[in-house]
Parts: sequence; C-alpha cells; structure tokens
Amino acid sequence: MNKLIRLYCAQINSTVGDFQGNFEKIALHIERAKELNCDIIAFPELAITGYPPEDLVLRPAFIDKNLEYLSKIKNISENITVIVGFISKDIEIYNSAAVINNKKIAAVYNKQFLPNYSVFDEERYFQQGSTAQVFEIKNMLFGVNICEDIFYSSGPLQKQAICGGAILIINISASPYHIGKISEREKLLFTRATDNKVNILYVNLVGGQDELVFDGSSVLINEKGEILYRAKPFEEDYFVFDLDTEEINFSRLQDSKFKTQRDLMRQSTEQIPIIKLKNKKLPSDNKNSGSRNSNDKNTNNNNSGNKNSGNKNNTFSHSTYSTRKDYYIENVSCIEEEIFKALVLGTKDFVLKNGFKKVVLGLSGGIDSALTSVIASFAVGPENTNVVLMPSIYSSEGSINDSLKLIKNIGINYEIIPIKESYSSIIKSLKDKLITSDTNDINITKENLQARLRGLILMALSNEYNWLVLATGNKSEISVGYCTLYGDMVGGFSPIKDIYKTMVYKICNFLNKKYNNIIPENIIKKVPSAELKPNQTDQDKLPPYEILDSILKYYIEEERNPEEIIKEGFNKKIVFDVINMVDLSEYKRRQGAPGIKITKRAFGKDRRYPITNKFKNLNN
Amino acid sequence: MNKLIRLYCAQINSTVGDFQGNFEKIALHIERAKELNCDIIAFPELAITGYPPEDLVLRPAFIDKNLEYLSKIKNISENITVIVGFISKDIEIYNSAAVINNKKIAAVYNKQFLPNYSVFDEERYFQQGSTAQVFEIKNMLFGVNICEDIFYSSGPLQKQAICGGAILIINISASPYHIGKISEREKLLFTRATDNKVNILYVNLVGGQDELVFDGSSVLINEKGEILYRAKPFEEDYFVFDLDTEEINFSRLQDSKFKTQRDLMRQSTEQIPIIKLKNKKLPSDNKNSGSRNSNDKNTNNNNSGNKNSGNKNNTFSHSTYSTRKDYYIENVSCIEEEIFKALVLGTKDFVLKNGFKKVVLGLSGGIDSALTSVIASFAVGPENTNVVLMPSIYSSEGSINDSLKLIKNIGINYEIIPIKESYSSIIKSLKDKLITSDTNDINITKENLQARLRGLILMALSNEYNWLVLATGNKSEISVGYCTLYGDMVGGFSPIKDIYKTMVYKICNFLNKKYNNIIPENIIKKVPSAELKPNQTDQDKLPPYEILDSILKYYIEEERNPEEIIKEGFNKKIVFDVINMVDLSEYKRRQGAPGIKITKRAFGKDRRYPITNKFKNLNN
Repeated sequence: MNKLIRLYCAQINSTVGDFQGNFEKIALHIERAKELNCDIIAFPELAITGYPPEDLVLRPAFIDKNLEYLSKIKNISENITVIVGFISKDIEIYNSAAVINNKKIAAVYNKQFLPNYSVFDEERYFQQGSTAQVFEIKNMLFGVNICEDIFYSSGPLQKQAICGGAILIINISASPYHIGKISEREKLLFTRATDNKVNILYVNLVGGQDELVFDGSSVLINEKGEILYRAKPFEEDYFVFDLDTEEINFSRLQDSKFKTQRDLMRQSTEQIPIIKLKNKKLPSDNKNSGSRNSNDKNTNNNNSGNKNSGNKNNTFSHSTYSTRKDYYIENVSCIEEEIFKALVLGTKDFVLKNGFKKVVLGLSGGIDSALTSVIASFAVGPENTNVVLMPSIYSSEGSINDSLKLIKNIGINYEIIPIKESYSSIIKSLKDKLITSDTNDINITKENLQARLRGLILMALSNEYNWLVLATGNKSEISVGYCTLYGDMVGGFSPIKDIYKTMVYKICNFLNKKYNNIIPENIIKKVPSAELKPNQTDQDKLPPYEILDSILKYYIEEERNPEEIIKEGFNKKIVFDVINMVDLSEYKRRQGAPGIKITKRAFGKDRRYPITNKFKNLNN
Repeated sequence: MNKLIRLYCAQINSTVGDFQGNFEKIALHIERAKELNCDIIAFPELAITGYPPEDLVLRPAFIDKNLEYLSKIKNISENITVIVGFISKDIEIYNSAAVINNKKIAAVYNKQFLPNYSVFDEERYFQQGSTAQVFEIKNMLFGVNICEDIFYSSGPLQKQAICGGAILIINISASPYHIGKISEREKLLFTRATDNKVNILYVNLVGGQDELVFDGSSVLINEKGEILYRAKPFEEDYFVFDLDTEEINFSRLQDSKFKTQRDLMRQSTEQIPIIKLKNKKLPSDNKNSGSRNSNDKNTNNNNSGNKNSGNKNNTFSHSTYSTRKDYYIENVSCIEEEIFKALVLGTKDFVLKNGFKKVVLGLSGGIDSALTSVIASFAVGPENTNVVLMPSIYSSEGSINDSLKLIKNIGINYEIIPIKESYSSIIKSLKDKLITSDTNDINITKENLQARLRGLILMALSNEYNWLVLATGNKSEISVGYCTLYGDMVGGFSPIKDIYKTMVYKICNFLNKKYNNIIPENIIKKVPSAELKPNQTDQDKLPPYEILDSILKYYIEEERNPEEIIKEGFNKKIVFDVINMVDLSEYKRRQGAPGIKITKRAFGKDRRYPITNKFKNLNN
C-alpha cells in the first residue's frame, strides 16, 4: 500500500472585512477536517480578510484585526496543518499564507508576484515576498504559494518542486471569473504540474465582491496533469482527498529531463529552506480509523474522486459526483449557464453582503429587464424580488402583457405606477424653459425625462421599503451610452452591465430551454425599443446588435484601432460612429452602478479611462 | 564675467490625448525660445500626451501617435536643446523625457521611480528605467529626471549630480495639487539642491484633468537653496533665466563633504554615461545679442529673477514680478485663495476640455451652491453660468431673496422653476405604494424625492441646452452621505466635493473680503439646512461642522481608529456615528460626479474602498 496524505480543500466564500464571519467558516472547516483526520487543510488567498480589501489595507486597525483572527485560527489548529491567507506585517505588509502546524505558526509564505493590471492593484499595497520554503510532513515535502505566483513558469513553484523536492504545491488563490477563465486556469495548472512533475492543490475563493465574482473551481491535479478532484464552481464547497505521495517520486526518478532541470537550477538557485512539521499522533487516529480505511479503499482506484460526505450537521453544500476531465459538471452544461451562475452569485452576494434582503427593478417588457428579473429571483428568491411597471403613453400594450406573463412565470411581486401624469406635470413646470413644451414633440430631453421619472419612482420605493434597486442595462448600451444617467442607470447594482446584448439573448434562450420557457417568447422576439417615443427602435440610433457587439469586442476587449476593425469587414462609418459613442460615454459609465465582470475587459476597475480625453482614434 | 546658460521653463497646460493641441503649445514655446536664443527649453512630464493618460496607454495607437508627435517636435528643434515628456517604447513602455538636441534625439531618460499610491497607478503601465545619464553642453553637465525620481535622496539626481558631475538637474514633473503641496515641494527641492550642491529646474504641469489639478509652480533653485525664479501657480506661464554655471563648481570645490560623498558613491555606482550635445553656433547669436546682454546685466544681481518679457504676440500670460522667498505671490495671498484658484482652474478645464461652454447648477440659498456659483463664474464667465431656483413649499422666503441678491452680485443667469406641483403629482401617482402618502408627513423618501425632482429638472435643462450640470455638495456631507444620490448629487462635475464645510465658510469669507461682499451676508450667516421639511437644519442629523470636520480629517486623511479619535477629545457616540455614516455611504460616493482633489486624501482614485465591506472600526 502506498503512503497517503489526507488533504482538505476548503473553498469558502469570505466577505471583505467580516473577520468574525470568515473566522466562523474557517473554524467549521477546521473542525470537520480534524474529525476526518486530515493532515492538511487549505483555505483561499486572504481568506481571513476577504479579497480584495482595497484601501482598507491602509488602515492599521484592519491589519491588526486580521492578525488577531489569525491567532484565533492558530489556537484551534491542534493536530492539523492549516494553510490560510492573511496579511502579514513586519516593517512592510505582505499578501501571505500562514502555515499553522499544531497550534504553532511554522512559517509564513509571502506572495512574490503581485498583480497590478486589469482589476488588480496589489503593488499599491503589498511588498513582494522573496522566500519560497518547503515543508516536510510525514516524510513528504510540499510547497505553498499564492495565486499569481503560479502564473510564472520560473516562479516559486518551480523552485519548490524541482530544487526543493516538493511533491505537492498548494496554491491558495482569489482568482476572479471571466468567460473562459476556468478552463484557462486548468490548462495552466496542467502545464505547471506536468512541467514540474508535481501535484497541485489549487484552492480558490468563491463568491461575489462588488465588481468581481470568484468562481471557486478549486482543483487537485497530479503530476501527469490528471484532475483528481474538482470542487463545484460558483458555490461554497470542500473536498477531502487521500493523495498518494510515493508514485510521484518513482516517476521523477524515471524522468531524465527532471533531473537535468534540477541540476541546472541548483547552480543558480539559493538553498530552499525546509521546515519540518509535526505530524499528529493521537488517540483520535483510532477513533476515525474506520472512515479513514474506508476512504483508503478508493484511493487505489486511480483517478477517482474520494469525497468524504462529512458531518451531517454542516451547512455546506457538496456534491457526490466523481472526477471528470471536462470542467462542465452536472449543473453547468454550457457557457450560458456558467455566465448565468456567475450573475446570480454576484448579485446575491452584493445584495446580501450589503445587508439588503429585497430588490426592486423596473420591468419594461424588454429582454434586459426580463433577464435581470430572473437573475434577481434566483439570487434572492422570487418572494424578495419586486418589479415595477411604469407605463408611459409610449409603452405598448404588448409590453405590459408580456411583463405580467413573465411576473407570473417567475412568481415575483409587482406594482404598476403609470408615469403619464407626473410627466405632464413636470413638462408643464418647465414649459417656457424648453425649446418646445409640446409633450408630443419628443426630443432627447423628453426621452430622458421619462427614464429619469422612472428612476425617481424606483428610488422612492427603495427609500420607503429598503429595497436595493437593480439597474437593467447591458454592456452594448452602456458602451455606447444608449442609456439615461439617473434614469434607467439608477441602481445600487447593475447585474448584466458586462453582458453584450447578443449574449443576453443567448442566456435567455438557455433559460427558456432549462426552465420551461420562463421568459415569454414575445419578450425575446420583439424588436428592441426603449419605448420613449412613438415607433422607436434601438436600431434608429444603433447598428444591429450582432454588428455592434462585434465592433465593441474588438475595440474594448482587444484595444484594436478603427482601421483594424474596418479590415475585419465592418462599414467604416459604423465603426467610427460606434467608437465615437464609446469614447463620449465615459462620463456616464463613471457614475453607473457597479456590476459583475464577465468579459475579459469590463468597465470599472478593469478599464480606467479618463473622462477628459481628446484622443480620437478616428483620424482618417 | 561668469559663463551663463540660458534656460527656458515652459509651464504648459497639456490636455490628455490632445496631441495636436499640445504640440501647438510646445511649438509656440520652442519658437519663442529660439528667438530668445535659449540653450535649453524644458516641458513638463508627458507634455505630449497629457497626464495621467490612464488606460489610454494600453492602446498601441495612442503610443504610436505620441511618437509621431515627438518626431514633429524633433523636427522643429534646430539649434536648441528641448526636453519634453513622452512615452517611449522598446519591448516595454516607459514614462520618459526626450533630450532633443538640434533636431536629433540625443538620449531618452526613463523614469525610475513609478508612483503607485494615492491617485497614481504608474506601475500598471510603465517599466522602470535604469540609466541616469548626464549631458554636456557649453562645457556644463546637466541631468534630467522625472517627477517622483526627485523624491528619493539616493535616486538618479544624486548619481547625476555627485558622480556624474551635473551642476544642473532638470526635473520634469506632473505633480498634482493638494493643500500645502506647493510649499512641501519647495522644501524638498531645497533639500535636494543643498544636499547635492546642484541647481534644480523644476518644470511642473499646470491645468485640470478630471479629479486632479496640477498647480504649475515651477521653480529654479540654486545649490544654496535660493529660489532664483518662480512661475505662477494655477496658470500657464514660462520664464527665461541665464544661469551661472561656474559659481557652483567653486562652491563644490570648497565643500569637503561633497567630495567625501563623491568618493563614497564612486565605489558603488556604475559609470554615469556622458552624452555630448552640440551647442548652437549661429548668425542668430548676433541677432539676439542685444537682448542677451541686457539680460546678462541682471544675472550678477544675486537672487533676482531675470524674466524675459518675450514676444509681444504671444498668448501666454506671464508676470513681471521678481523672486520672493515666500511662495505666496501677488495673486495668492492666503491658503483660501490658493484653494479657490485650484477650484476655478479645475472646474474651468473640466468644462472646457470636455467641450462644454456653459454650466448650470441649482441655487438653494445655501452657502455651498453660492460658492459653487462663484467658482463657476470665475471658471467660465458669469455669462456662461446659469443657476436655477427650484423652491418647494419648504423653501424659505429668505433663501429666494438671498439667491437673487447673489445672482445680481455675480451677474449670472437664472431661472425659477418651482417644484411644488410636480412633487404633488408624483406623490399622487405613488399614493397607495407609500406607507404614508400625506404630502405633509415628510420622511426620507419624500425628502429625497424633492431633491431628485430638482436633479431631474437640472438634467432636462442640461439636455436641452447642452449645459454641464455642476453638483454643489461639499466634502463634509459627501463623507457622511448627507446628500441625495440622483438628487443634489446630480452633475457632470462636483467642484467643491473635497472641501469641508468649515473650509467652505473660510473661502466665502475670503471672497467677500476680496470681492466686496459678493456673497450676501445672510447666506453665510444662516443656519445650514437642506430645507426639505419644515424647520429642518443640518444639525438635526449631524454634529456641528467644526466637530464633524475634525473627526472626518482624523478618519479619512489620517486613517485613525475611533479609539484614537476619541482620545483627541471627541464624544464617543459622535465619533462612532460619524464613522458609521462614512462607511455606509461608500455606495453613494461611487456614483458621484468627479471633483477636484484638494485635500491630502480625496474620495475617488485617491481612496479606493470596497462597497461590500463589513469591517467595523467600532468594536467597543
């Protein structure tokens, strides 16, 4: 029988600044890991503080509180090794992993590669670490590093695995979701594992934090690149796995490339410190030996997950599925479902973590507000989702009926508050101040006024009942400014702000397939319109959404020049118009509600454009 | 007669992305510098692109355009040495200074210290430079470095001056204003100049860019720490100075500490490259010799500015004052005036650089909107400043009269649009949806509704006439959330958002002294009130502003804990309430308009707090 080490991967949902709440989650998992007689339990990056804590890190009290809670975790870590993310401090501060062994901090690993691009600002806060130690437990060596560290082929992982002799790397992470990220990450882990002939336990954070959703998707992968276990995406989860610690040594011995690499590196790499950890030796070993043995049976069954079902009293969801090569697991069947789950988790966490229970949004009869309603009802429950129909004289009868059908399908609450009379009254008060006060002569002023009146009504209900307002704009319209500041942009959160209109349709079609046509066909099929003046459609001002979205992706996500986009086969005038609209709308976006990053490049922290900007991409 | 070098300091107002506009300014100064037979002309950091260009830097087309314009500058630089900030590129990009000598790029200096704190994100964009060369012209050595570089005592300045033998350092800068910054900077320059026995020409950017105001305040300081010349703060300016290049060598020879330092450094510092520049040798030397000689007379007059009045056809303002030790020059008599000038410049540049001509704001009769009106009228002219009085049933008669008096004093345009009837109409439409629809039973919903109705009216006028809306909130109320999102927070720009209420009073008192009681006494003396319900005052919900502002400064600018603030002598409950209000208002601030950074720590890029944040400072 091979020598085994029992690993516990705790994929938790930490909340920024919620030290007590995060500690309680951590403690629950440590308790269970001890009951299950695990050797090592690992939590995500900055699990104690939540991620990203942003400028809270500049408050000395925040750092102190985090150290206080590290100490509490230390004190409950008897007879187990706990790896947990926190902020360490000497004369600088570091993004760190504590390796706690039997109530002692055996060592602190400091993150060496600090991301300072995209949504990340870690160089604003942290000092780089420099030491990559390895730890010895049960005669096995393992290394610990943090998130971005694993992105570098000659980073600490290589030193720990090749020079340090670690056969397992535990990477604790807080890696946010974007489309395709889960599979990108697994490819990377495959490469690192096989290049360095090392097992990798990748423990990722899960949950929403303002603009970011962390997808979890923690994974254990062996030195052959085989996935030994996957945690669920977009949910709290954990797994226990008995890892074989011997086979890898055999395969390293067989591999002359590994030895050559080791020789090469040893010439230039400083000595890797080895820190010995105490292994537990306890009566409880006997107590739990039954369950241990029953697990052991399965571990010889190569490549099969070995999930312990844990304590029945726990509140953590966990699945019973086995390992698959394909990362789409039973409840994520396609990219649209993956995105939908990200939207639901991001919305749920924003609402609940900010102390709200209920939400409200305006339901126009269009597809954007329909999707937002469904997201809301999945996030906080239909009973906590309120929608308001605010018809004007330009709202079609169809829109109201479609909305009512949708409301019935989802089972959410609704109000109808017509804006016709308030609108007339405001126009009257402005009469001689407007160029034309004829309420039928609709210009942009009057279109916006209707949208703003609706925003004002939603905010009144928000004030009255403490409902969080959800904005319903999609990325296509927010990109080109086809939305009204203080109107339909009103909201504390904007769930689909990073979803292009064409993707809105795809997600709705997916939902209809999965949930029995929850969104009335009419809503999906109707011609998109803001219904702010007679016979208006979005395409009066915008190109068809397929074209618009393609241009936007080239411009926003790929930073392509107009000339290059035109070469892809788009009409020159359309390209120029779209880019011009994007550039001119920065001021609106700056005041928009936060929403969930879904694409490779979202607005917000991810794309920091000046408002005052005379750079024209359009010089020919 | 001593050997002289003629320096031209061009303190220009670049606009981000306005390559053509920035080039035209640069070309005009180069032309004048050539006419004046100057040896060296220096422009601010990133003068070609504007600062900070933020994520525009990630667009390859932006970098290319900047290189194209560098080339244009090179081509007009015959017989002169031009130092200008731009973005250079090899396999990385750098924040750089080009040293152009007689139509050739003699060298490029890359910034070595990249600020990545406060409002700065330079590590997001740029690679660090490593070479600190010196340049030889007319047998004099000088060094060039950039902004942050000068903040480090053992940075490139020391290498260039002590090891490289430079007797002049030209630091090109884009250093934004905050209270006290101008004198802080001069103290720093004093220390660097005297420590390294070197002359320093500090050329700073001037102008507003979104949240930042660059104050200019360029300066030439000698190795004794004496200010030889100061450019004006908060205006475009330039000066020409004939710097004595010999005296410093004499004083270095006398100083054994300087020699000891040089010996020490030479052991550990790599060789400083010396790049020889061609000196002009031209018929034009004769042409301008008259003016040159007349300048030379003054330079023997120690410590006196030697400003050339320049071409009469130029459009640049420049003063005729001589050098002073005190940095408050004739048009900046006190800190309030300094701040007022920063506010006016920041507002002016935001409005005009974004293509607006006129502004509009709501005039309530309170001191904040009064000050904002004065700022606006100074920024864009009273004829382009529109104010709207929007009385409700709770507006006092006094407020309207005071507003009309102020309007007359400033000479701005106004409209009166009562909101009473629209307000009733909206309440009616909400009737059974509100807990109480009695219009006289005012709760927060109805208070906000009035504020939002006013915001909606301002936005209607903005849409109709293309007026930029200015929000009128001050830092005290924005800190604690005593303001209405989508109500009084409406606006494209928020001039006084970083001005505490107590400072609002001080600035108004200053303005009244200087401008013949421009703000009616009543407005300053009345008890602050939002006038959203009967007999309301700000102090119903907030502590007195002297106390509030002190607590806010401790908490926001100094990151002090509640316990520490209480120790300063404040009431525990008040401190806790204030901090709690600040923490809970992050979501409002996130959607607020940008405004000018004035304090050491402004909201916005300067203070990046998560919205979702359960960190309570208040645990006892």
